[in-house]
Amino acid sequence: MSLTHASVQTAGLDQLVETHRDEIERAVAATHTREYFSAFAESPSPRVYGETAAAEGEAAFQALLGQPFPLDQPGDGSRVGAEVSPYRLTLGVSYPHASLDQLIDASSAALRSWRRATPAQRGAVAVEILHRINGRAFEMAHAVMHTSGQAFVMAFQAGGAHALDRGLEAVAYAVEEQQRHAADVLWEKPQGKRDPLRMAKTFTPVSRGIALVIGCNTFPTWNSYPGLFASLVTGNTVIVKPHPGAVLPLAVTVQVARQVLAEYGFDPNVVLLAAEADGELIAGDLATHPQVKVIDFTGSATFGNWLEDHARQAVVYTEKSGVNSVILESTNAYRAALDNLAFTLSLYSGQMCTTTQNIIVPGAGIATDEGHKSVDDLVGDLGAALDRLLGDDEKAAGVLGAVVNDAVAERLERARRHPVAVKSRTVQVRDWPEARIVTPLVARADASNHADLEAVSVECFGPVSFLVTVTDRQHAVELFTSLVNEKGALTAGVYSTDDSFLDDVREAALLSGVALSENLTGGVFVNQTAAFSDFHGTGANPAANATYADGHFVAGRFRTIETRRHAGAE
Amino acid sequence: MSLTHASVQTAGLDQLVETHRDEIERAVAATHTREYFSAFAESPSPRVYGETAAAEGEAAFQALLGQPFPLDQPGDGSRVGAEVSPYRLTLGVSYPHASLDQLIDASSAALRSWRRATPAQRGAVAVEILHRINGRAFEMAHAVMHTSGQAFVMAFQAGGAHALDRGLEAVAYAVEEQQRHAADVLWEKPQGKRDPLRMAKTFTPVSRGIALVIGCNTFPTWNSYPGLFASLVTGNTVIVKPHPGAVLPLAVTVQVARQVLAEYGFDPNVVLLAAEADGELIAGDLATHPQVKVIDFTGSATFGNWLEDHARQAVVYTEKSGVNSVILESTNAYRAALDNLAFTLSLYSGQMCTTTQNIIVPGAGIATDEGHKSVDDLVGDLGAALDRLLGDDEKAAGVLGAVVNDAVAERLERARRHPVAVKSRTVQVRDWPEARIVTPLVARADASNHADLEAVSVECFGPVSFLVTVTDRQHAVELFTSLVNEKGALTAGVYSTDDSFLDDVREAALLSGVALSENLTGGVFVNQTAAFSDFHGTGANPAANATYADGHFVAGRFRTIETRRHAGAE
Repeated sequence: MSLTHASVQTAGLDQLVETHRDEIERAVAATHTREYFSAFAESPSPRVYGETAAAEGEAAFQALLGQPFPLDQPGDGSRVGAEVSPYRLTLGVSYPHASLDQLIDASSAALRSWRRATPAQRGAVAVEILHRINGRAFEMAHAVMHTSGQAFVMAFQAGGAHALDRGLEAVAYAVEEQQRHAADVLWEKPQGKRDPLRMAKTFTPVSRGIALVIGCNTFPTWNSYPGLFASLVTGNTVIVKPHPGAVLPLAVTVQVARQVLAEYGFDPNVVLLAAEADGELIAGDLATHPQVKVIDFTGSATFGNWLEDHARQAVVYTEKSGVNSVILESTNAYRAALDNLAFTLSLYSGQMCTTTQNIIVPGAGIATDEGHKSVDDLVGDLGAALDRLLGDDEKAAGVLGAVVNDAVAERLERARRHPVAVKSRTVQVRDWPEARIVTPLVARADASNHADLEAVSVECFGPVSFLVTVTDRQHAVELFTSLVNEKGALTAGVYSTDDSFLDDVREAALLSGVALSENLTGGVFVNQTAAFSDFHGTGANPAANATYADGHFVAGRFRTIETRRHAGAE
Repeated sequence: MSLTHASVQTAGLDQLVETHRDEIERAVAATHTREYFSAFAESPSPRVYGETAAAEGEAAFQALLGQPFPLDQPGDGSRVGAEVSPYRLTLGVSYPHASLDQLIDASSAALRSWRRATPAQRGAVAVEILHRINGRAFEMAHAVMHTSGQAFVMAFQAGGAHALDRGLEAVAYAVEEQQRHAADVLWEKPQGKRDPLRMAKTFTPVSRGIALVIGCNTFPTWNSYPGLFASLVTGNTVIVKPHPGAVLPLAVTVQVARQVLAEYGFDPNVVLLAAEADGELIAGDLATHPQVKVIDFTGSATFGNWLEDHARQAVVYTEKSGVNSVILESTNAYRAALDNLAFTLSLYSGQMCTTTQNIIVPGAGIATDEGHKSVDDLVGDLGAALDRLLGDDEKAAGVLGAVVNDAVAERLERARRHPVAVKSRTVQVRDWPEARIVTPLVARADASNHADLEAVSVECFGPVSFLVTVTDRQHAVELFTSLVNEKGALTAGVYSTDDSFLDDVREAALLSGVALSENLTGGVFVNQTAAFSDFHGTGANPAANATYADGHFVAGRFRTIETRRHAGAE
């Protein structure tokens, strides 16, 4: 049975393709039109998920705690795992451990059957996995909350529905790209008065091989699903290597994937979890293994760049760090602009690769609908906006989430050495009295000062931002541009009432290669992107070498192999 | 004027977009269906190109000889060039020379205006360039013939129409990929009973920057046009660095491109020629220049791999060398199969990266429609097939072309040390008495012998092939597979009447990542591919990291940059 002729033939699989065909088609259409589309409800409301879903999901999560996580995959018999929730709950979940060779061998063995499936079949299996994960939405939200530190609703949305939408987006691109070329054709080349040349040609998308997905601590699902599902649907087997602090959400993901795969007749080892023993640091060895052909990574620039330089046998997609800026030049909606900025700085305590780090302001202040505002005015008014948002501790905690790890806390401590514009304070909540919950610190910096410039030019991941004064708006554009070009950026924003200045900043954003949000004042924030419409990252600046998602994100994960013969003959 | 709003507005350009719209649409459709499509006539017949075209084209070529080539581009005032035709005609053409900095500065300055054009405009300009080159078809054929050594008709076809079709194919992929996403959208996200969130979003394809195309000696146009036109249409400016032995065809190309660009209001420096002084070896410095962001290379594995390893600031597409095999297991059309193989070995004296190097045969011989044939029989019958094709010197020269350079001649000499199955002889023709024209040498090798195995595992570019005996057909598949995996291959073939064996070889081809031609006996040859239908290279084995052409070949040459704002606001 060869790849050319084969598709895995089971009635159930055919039915699954039918079941999910329409959703994939609508998803593909949305990637083209960029119109609003979502396949997964972001609201944890009982009207959407049912009256019992929340309680059942929480119970399912509780039942996982202190237990060996049920994942029947090849391993060495040992168990690993030492996750502690940023909310100070010790998870006590252990995961099966496998050696590198065991992982590679099992993944390699599973490759044959998975490659044999058609792109449509793999797409349907992937969509089924996504919906089954969504069926455990509340359990997953707790798992994301207690590994990333995200507040519950955010964990439900960003860790659940939004991550699943990003996964579906990757499925859509992967299916479409593999179906871009006809599966077969009768090629007839005219030969004047002679009979035409006739060739029967077959075109088969063939995956690269084993794919590796390296997850991060803060967005274990959202940042992993694009690569995971893009690799899976293009026929690669996938080894999922979670961050040691955020294993559970990906263990649930792998568990669901393996269940669905087995149910439809595939080797469940198409998807494997690579949970690490303490200090094992398996990622580098996995990433440079000759059989690993695709890598998706989210994390530090240091390791991301190392992967790009050393995992030369693989196609490597990285989402690293950057320094994100917003230029505040003028506004006709001063209060709304500051409220919008305050939310961006506060959401998940700025522990997002998309959070604005630098608010760049001309030293002379800005024109607003409330009159001219000096930088000092701005400091006070931004502080007031943050107070409006975060004044009530219980409500504040719902925006801020918890500090994910000590490294973030240490960066916040170090930032206190800068002149502080808006102080960070600790938030206390009933349910999680021991959690580290903090409001963002806004420091002041002067771009003309060398030490300040250096400070604002390094990513300070966490609840630290800078109000950076520049000499004038031209200087603002220059600083903005050089930060994108040299340090990379995943997001950028501008506030201005001057069309010609907006044009200048737009041009700077396009040429430096960063997405730009202009004059955000309502319910959309510079640090958030919507699947199917907004691209996350651009691949055009040092913060990321790819984007969620586009043709480039999927086209390198497989190759189209042709076979041809004279038509009629054989 | 910003990239978002701008398109270069001239009535002529709008008309040009209209003029070429249909052709681009048909080309895009052909890439999907893989049906026969060609936009450029491959026959040098006066009925197609007109009664006077041949004579006028030859005269135009003659007029270039011994002259400074008219190319008005920035330079240092010196002129370079020392091409000598493989047919022993000294071209005596000199080209303007520019320093690396002059090239980069001029290309960089031209980038701004070129980026401002829309993908449709750039596509139309590219198609216009292709047709203008086709308007100089005979002149180009002579230029290709007298740099590559290809025989005239082959130079006309492979260097002309087929190269232009590969260029148009790249235009089609590049236009489609840039138009995959809507240029703008009104995004409306429902908010229950509240008003929906409404965002106006703009998506702009933005090129990487400066692209470099490094040409080769044997197919100066065919191997350069895919990268050149893919980079051009995605908005990159292009520096064309020809092989020092094959400058003229690309100088004509650059000249035409610059004329069309200027005519439609663009900076002609969007396309520049980087002709080298003797021994200057500018390619490495250009390729690692920080502003060079895209590289297309055809040539040796050594330099191709060097580029992949060192030009890390750029997206690098390479077509390198490989070791191509055909398995001869059995056939029901013995004579036709040998005729087909004989043509493949002979065409352009095997100086193609796609020529079959190894004919792999079971030592016990093969079953055919003419009875069982031992390996000795096969040797004799292949020799006879070569004689049928090449018996007449004048006709033979029309297939063989001339030996392109001393390196090829030296490889042929070295191959004479192997046991010879079919001798190579020198061909004499009236018109070019001094040209080195040779028939292919077929050596014998035994895959069980270590030295033989080593010999057949190294690319021997030129008129040298091996009849490689293996123990049995399973051994044939193993050798085939290991050669593709370890040495790379651009083509592969099999002859067999056994469906189950064909299935095995097909599976081996798919998994090792090489295109497979099965039982070729007619007017299609394993070493030839047709644009729009056949992929050239796969990007799945060491011979090339990309293919002509697919989504992957174009998607990395630009990035889509988004800007967004509240709808109605602004």
